[in-house]
This record gives sequence, structure tokens and C-alpha cells, in this order.
Amino acid sequence: MPRYKIIVEYDGAPFVGWQLQEKDLSVQGALMAAIEAFSGEKVMVQGAGRTDAGVHAIGQVAHFDLAVERETDTVRDAINAHLRPHPVAVLSAEKVAADFDARRSALRRHYLYRIGNRRPDLALERGRAWRVPRRLDTDAMHAAAQRLIGKHDFTTFRSTECQAKSPEKTLDRLDVSRAGEEVHITAVARSFLHNQVRSMVGSLAMVGDGKWQPDDMWRALQARDRAACGPVAPPDGLYLVRVDY
Amino acid sequence: MPRYKIIVEYDGAPFVGWQLQEKDLSVQGALMAAIEAFSGEKVMVQGAGRTDAGVHAIGQVAHFDLAVERETDTVRDAINAHLRPHPVAVLSAEKVAADFDARRSALRRHYLYRIGNRRPDLALERGRAWRVPRRLDTDAMHAAAQRLIGKHDFTTFRSTECQAKSPEKTLDRLDVSRAGEEVHITAVARSFLHNQVRSMVGSLAMVGDGKWQPDDMWRALQARDRAACGPVAPPDGLYLVRVDY
Repeated sequence: MPRYKIIVEYDGAPFVGWQLQEKDLSVQGALMAAIEAFSGEKVMVQGAGRTDAGVHAIGQVAHFDLAVERETDTVRDAINAHLRPHPVAVLSAEKVAADFDARRSALRRHYLYRIGNRRPDLALERGRAWRVPRRLDTDAMHAAAQRLIGKHDFTTFRSTECQAKSPEKTLDRLDVSRAGEEVHITAVARSFLHNQVRSMVGSLAMVGDGKWQPDDMWRALQARDRAACGPVAPPDGLYLVRVDY
Repeated sequence: MPRYKIIVEYDGAPFVGWQLQEKDLSVQGALMAAIEAFSGEKVMVQGAGRTDAGVHAIGQVAHFDLAVERETDTVRDAINAHLRPHPVAVLSAEKVAADFDARRSALRRHYLYRIGNRRPDLALERGRAWRVPRRLDTDAMHAAAQRLIGKHDFTTFRSTECQAKSPEKTLDRLDVSRAGEEVHITAVARSFLHNQVRSMVGSLAMVGDGKWQPDDMWRALQARDRAACGPVAPPDGLYLVRVDY
């Protein structure tokens, strides 16, 4: 039974998130419906990351098995034809070994968070970035971000709904930089807790705004207490960019 | 009576275009309603360019008069507060001389056209770019574009609904370049005929696709015949970027 790996782009706005739900439109559900429509096969599609409602992907990865072997370009084009008009597109499809697992085999996940750092509302980038009106100090934010690198108990930056067994994660990179009127935050780790990136971004914004000092980030982490976290950043600015295997 | 110049950004998707219409939502109408809501004054807002339905702006320029003088930052913020939830934002407001006219005083208009040059559908950039699945030869497109520079009768690249008195325009720049998987076309002129940029882009895409030779662009121009134009590119990829005064 051939296994396929696909790279998927989507605008998270119209979806309840990646994960399949009985009634509401999910990215996983849209993909499964499109695959069934062209192949006649009911498949389970497994994704590398369960993005929340409103969170986008430039390079989500998923896998599924088909009973009938097909050309990878045909698979990509056929899924895309049946995904319309949903804002989801399969960028590429390839055959992979039967033991490839989009979630379990992932070595590193790369996320980008975009802040529109300007006073006027976002018109063109509405829903694609988080508008923060006051000028953020990105040097202070980057310095604070470095306090979180390494293996830690990230309970402070974890949703109370997080189902991970352990709050321990190893954060490989957390970089803050300015790109014109935008502030970009890139986060890289093998895996993240639920809402971890948005929680870290919300706390970094407190630093950028001068309400927290960079050292306060370390104190928040050490508190191992959800109440010590800054306000969680909205989903609009978050992108799953790439998954390494 | 103080006159204000504003720079405006918008996502053209939900609008019938810039120009005020009795029933349907226009950008001009949304701005006039927002200005009236905060100032109590019924004003006429004049824009530099009458963008069509679905066409976006990063830097549209408009002017209007208020009976009561106000701080420019207040004007900007108050209009933005009343524009919500429409995807329109005033980026800046300044006081200008009474003879400033956003349309008539404009020296040069800059447009950008974005082509998403890839086989998969556009998910994140849907409505923000024109997807062209086959690989475009941007060198050939740029060479063809240079045939249109200068003062010409642009009847071939003019909508049959164009109300300009003369079909003669002077095209200052028409550049084609690749940016990753996108093709960018920038067009600069004092003013354009109705649908001129989209008509030129559609014809350039014929060149990029190998269906036209660069010289065919010159022949199309010389024909002075709407029927000689390539298929008009959709509004989705067009942005009014800047207006010089």
C-alpha cells in the first residue's frame, strides 16, 4: 500500500483548525474529502502539526496511504482540483517509505509569527498578521527570547488544554527581527506544546513594549505557572513554515 | 476650509471598486461614510486612481475638505476607527494647499502586478495574485514590455468602456522580474487608460508563455485595435502602489 507525503499550504481563517471535527470545516477534513473524491478511497490523513483555528501554513506536512498506486503529480493535481474553493493547496506529493510518519518522524518544526507593527489597521494583511500599534523594541525582544533557548519546563507558555504528557521541550531557536513595518519571530524546535509559540510571542510583545524587561522572560519561565505568561498572541500571525525529517 | 491628503491601503476583494455607487460598497463610499461618522460633515473624497473591483491599493491617494480644522493624526485615527470592519486603512493624513487635487495634480502613478507562477492553486495569496501555472519566460516578457515604452496610441490596451478623451498615453516604465515563484510587473506613467495595465499584463503573459514573440507586442500596439490585445489579466494581482506629486 503506497504511502504519500504531501506539503500543504493554507489560509487558516475559514477553518476550525487542522484537526478533523464532526461538523465544522477543518483542513484535515477538507484534504480527506478531496482525496476520497478523486480516488474513491476513504483515507486518514496525518499531519505534522495540529494548527489551531486561524493559524496558517506555508509548509504543513501530512501523509496518507492509497490502495492504488498513482503518479505523484497526478495525486497533487487531483487533490487540488477537489479542494477548490477551499484556500488549501498541495504544493508537492511524493512516495515515501511505509514507516514515514508526518508527526512522529518530524525532527524539527519551523514557525513564523508576523506582527504588523504600525498604528493604522491592517487592510491588506488583515488576518495574516497581528497588528501591534506601539513601536516594539526588537533588540530587547530578541535578547529576551534567548532566555528561553534550551531544554525547559514550558508550563508557563502552555495552554491549559495542552494534552502533552510532559511540559518539557527543547527550544532550538527563537529569533526576533524587523522587516520594514513588520516584526518577524521565528521559532524552531522538535515539537511545541499547545499554544507555546503564541504564548511566547505574546510575552515577547510585553518586552518589546517596555512593560517587561528581558529578564522577566526568564522569571516567567521559571515560575512554571500559566498565570505568569503574557497575553497570548492571536492566531492570525502564525505560520507553520517547514517540517524537517 | 482646510484640505487633507490621505494615503490609503485596501484589499479590493469586497468592493465594487474605488468609485462611489448608489447601492454597492465602494472604497470611496466607505471613506466618505467614515469621515462623516467622525466629523458630522458630508464630504466628497477625490481619489488619484479609480481602481476596479478586486484591485488593491498599497498607496492610493485622496483628498477632501473639512469645515473644521483638526489634527492630522486625529483625522487618520478617527477615519480608521469608523472604517472597521472594512479592509481599508488610512496610512497617513496631512494638510495640503487648497489647490491640491489628488487626481489632477498627480505626476506619476505606480502600479504593481503580481503573478503567482506555479502549478498548485494559490491558498494564502488567493485574490492577491494571478495564478499562471506554466513557467513564464520573464526575460522575453521584459523585452516585449520595452516595446511599449514612450508616447503611443494605446487603443489596443484600452477597455471599450474607457472614457478618456484620447487613447494617447506616455508609458514611463514597464518592468518584468521574477521574485521566487512570483513574477512582478511594475508599470509607471502619469496616467493610464481604463484596464491598460491589466491588458498589457495579459498580453505579456502570452509572450511569457511562448504564444507571442516579443515583436508581437509591438504589432499589437500598432494595430490600435482592441481585438489585437491578449486576454485581460484578472484584477486580483493589481496594486496601486504609489502616486507622485
